[in-house]
Amino acid sequence: MTDAERLCDLNTPALVLDEARMRRNIARLNARMERLGVTLRPHLKTAKSVEVARQQIPGETGPVTVSTLKEAEVFAAAGVRDILYAVGITPGKLARVQAIRAAGCDLAVVLDSEAQAESVIAASRASGADIPALIEIDSDGCRSGLDPSDPRIITLGRALAGAGLLRGVMTHAGDSYGALGEEALAAFAAQEQAAAVTAAEALRRAGLACPVVSVGSTPTAHAACDLTGVTEVRAGVYVFFDLVMAGIGVCAVEDIALSVLTTVIGHQTHKGWALVDAGWMALSADRGTARQARDQGYGLVCDIEGRPLEDLIVAAANQEHGIVARRPGDTRPLPHLPVGTRLRILPNHACATGAQHDAYAVIPAEPGQGLMDWPRFRGW
Amino acid sequence: MTDAERLCDLNTPALVLDEARMRRNIARLNARMERLGVTLRPHLKTAKSVEVARQQIPGETGPVTVSTLKEAEVFAAAGVRDILYAVGITPGKLARVQAIRAAGCDLAVVLDSEAQAESVIAASRASGADIPALIEIDSDGCRSGLDPSDPRIITLGRALAGAGLLRGVMTHAGDSYGALGEEALAAFAAQEQAAAVTAAEALRRAGLACPVVSVGSTPTAHAACDLTGVTEVRAGVYVFFDLVMAGIGVCAVEDIALSVLTTVIGHQTHKGWALVDAGWMALSADRGTARQARDQGYGLVCDIEGRPLEDLIVAAANQEHGIVARRPGDTRPLPHLPVGTRLRILPNHACATGAQHDAYAVIPAEPGQGLMDWPRFRGW
Repeated sequence: MTDAERLCDLNTPALVLDEARMRRNIARLNARMERLGVTLRPHLKTAKSVEVARQQIPGETGPVTVSTLKEAEVFAAAGVRDILYAVGITPGKLARVQAIRAAGCDLAVVLDSEAQAESVIAASRASGADIPALIEIDSDGCRSGLDPSDPRIITLGRALAGAGLLRGVMTHAGDSYGALGEEALAAFAAQEQAAAVTAAEALRRAGLACPVVSVGSTPTAHAACDLTGVTEVRAGVYVFFDLVMAGIGVCAVEDIALSVLTTVIGHQTHKGWALVDAGWMALSADRGTARQARDQGYGLVCDIEGRPLEDLIVAAANQEHGIVARRPGDTRPLPHLPVGTRLRILPNHACATGAQHDAYAVIPAEPGQGLMDWPRFRGW
Repeated sequence: MTDAERLCDLNTPALVLDEARMRRNIARLNARMERLGVTLRPHLKTAKSVEVARQQIPGETGPVTVSTLKEAEVFAAAGVRDILYAVGITPGKLARVQAIRAAGCDLAVVLDSEAQAESVIAASRASGADIPALIEIDSDGCRSGLDPSDPRIITLGRALAGAGLLRGVMTHAGDSYGALGEEALAAFAAQEQAAAVTAAEALRRAGLACPVVSVGSTPTAHAACDLTGVTEVRAGVYVFFDLVMAGIGVCAVEDIALSVLTTVIGHQTHKGWALVDAGWMALSADRGTARQARDQGYGLVCDIEGRPLEDLIVAAANQEHGIVARRPGDTRPLPHLPVGTRLRILPNHACATGAQHDAYAVIPAEPGQGLMDWPRFRGW
């Protein structure tokens, strides 16, 4: 029995992971980081899977990045010992942070305000157990963080360092997802580096130690030419890749390791539609390619082997219905896709599509052993 | 301790359900269906909760609608005895359908092609256990189903009736979500009714019994003035309502029973932003109000009591970050929202936002008993 035949036995929709592609993606960024001489701190929010994390961090103890305390708790319980929680901390979350640290995991937090720093300092003092913190720097104006020239970086640095809690600075140029092509991506990478290094140098000029200078996103990690002054790079979606990443040139469609297995449930032949049982519940409502040159709808349609199928897309989606069609302007009739046909849909955004599922059906890199079932977790 | 104080003790983000509003919403549609003299067959895909379903179907045995076989299995196990699986059936799903039926639940399927009818007839014959089917009718050109004048309705009807499996016809005018105002919605309701009744009459003229004539969506259920010939109405989101429904005039913002509890995690004061810990992972990526006159971003911001807060919206969202801001053109500064402030976000689309969570924190209709924890399920 082939793996494709095994996929035909699964209930649909289902999340499929091509382990061979994932391993290639992991090896590619690992090699790149080695060449650039920086540590990779993979962001585990994309896969939310202990099995995937083990392949991303062969030592199994870290370093890693997370986006929720639930992720921190799960990965700490799985043996990870070095975690950065990369979403601004709030006072109400400090007790959970301290519990994770007390269990032997070096969990650090990020912040960009005096109020947050005060709460971290107060909690550390009250318990006698330090909570190390990084100051978040804004490198693209898209989200949180202080401008690299903001004098509050020094104020915060002094307060944290005075309590022995200053670990460094971090930034994330999320806007790089909207860049296109090697040159634009490299410019974003340089911008991230400049912002983080500028802030670190300002702290050092003020007499404060700034051991960690952390930057990253998948596009900038793959585009950076020079990371002088940077100590670590964070990236998440590199592990699976997706159509948004392919659309900006960070990967090829053939690198995308994640897909949603679906079944044809009907047709509107006069409209050129096949209906499938993967709607937005299985694919996510993410329309990240809508702003790109090539709008992939709710995903790119592949055959059961994972090969793109005559450039069909999921043109529309309801909760449990997807409409497979040709692109606008392409008037060729649909290929023959009888009811019951299995297809695989490549996702716009791997983080969002993965989150709609509780497990991966894994096509193993070493064939002949059958599909593997790897759980995903979620929640906060 | 008040319920608002109890909400301040929860980890965020979290899904909050206002039971009093939900009960009002349920009572409103129940009363309407009673006046119109038709049976309500609630669509349980919105809440995916046995506790919510018990309030929607006081008898606890049905009738109900589902969008996945997982829903059918969970609700059948909870005692529901009359279920319509309203997504086109495929041969690969018939074994699960038969297992649910064998356990004593009258589960019916829908189809719109000869291939599907043949597989249902063959499976019924092979097992000696009937699988009743409804023919799906297309009333708005948006998804699946046969045109009400399509002669294949008779062909399918004859094949199914010959095997003793024809239960009736069903349609869903999903396009009604794009209508605006009472008159447009009533026109959609009339269109749904006309499509279903036309198809039923065609079957009857061909000498076939068509006991069930099933229509519905929340907008049409609330707008229909006359349902002559219709035997049952399906509706899902009426139980919670959401901003899309408020935007087309089916409910008021004050009727929305679902919200996402979140915490302020930072500010970009010069931009008029507050950052919160509810991104698209907690809110869903659904942007259903983007096409409406009043674009609500990723949701409308309320205070901890659930009252809209100075017309703020979640203007942008990353995976675990939301950006709270004023609407475009509104230049007033943000209200004072210190780090740690709890807010509640009303969702664009209750089905999508609910699906991002594993449980409801329920504010009980009868105060003084503390919050209740109702689980949600998911998967297929």
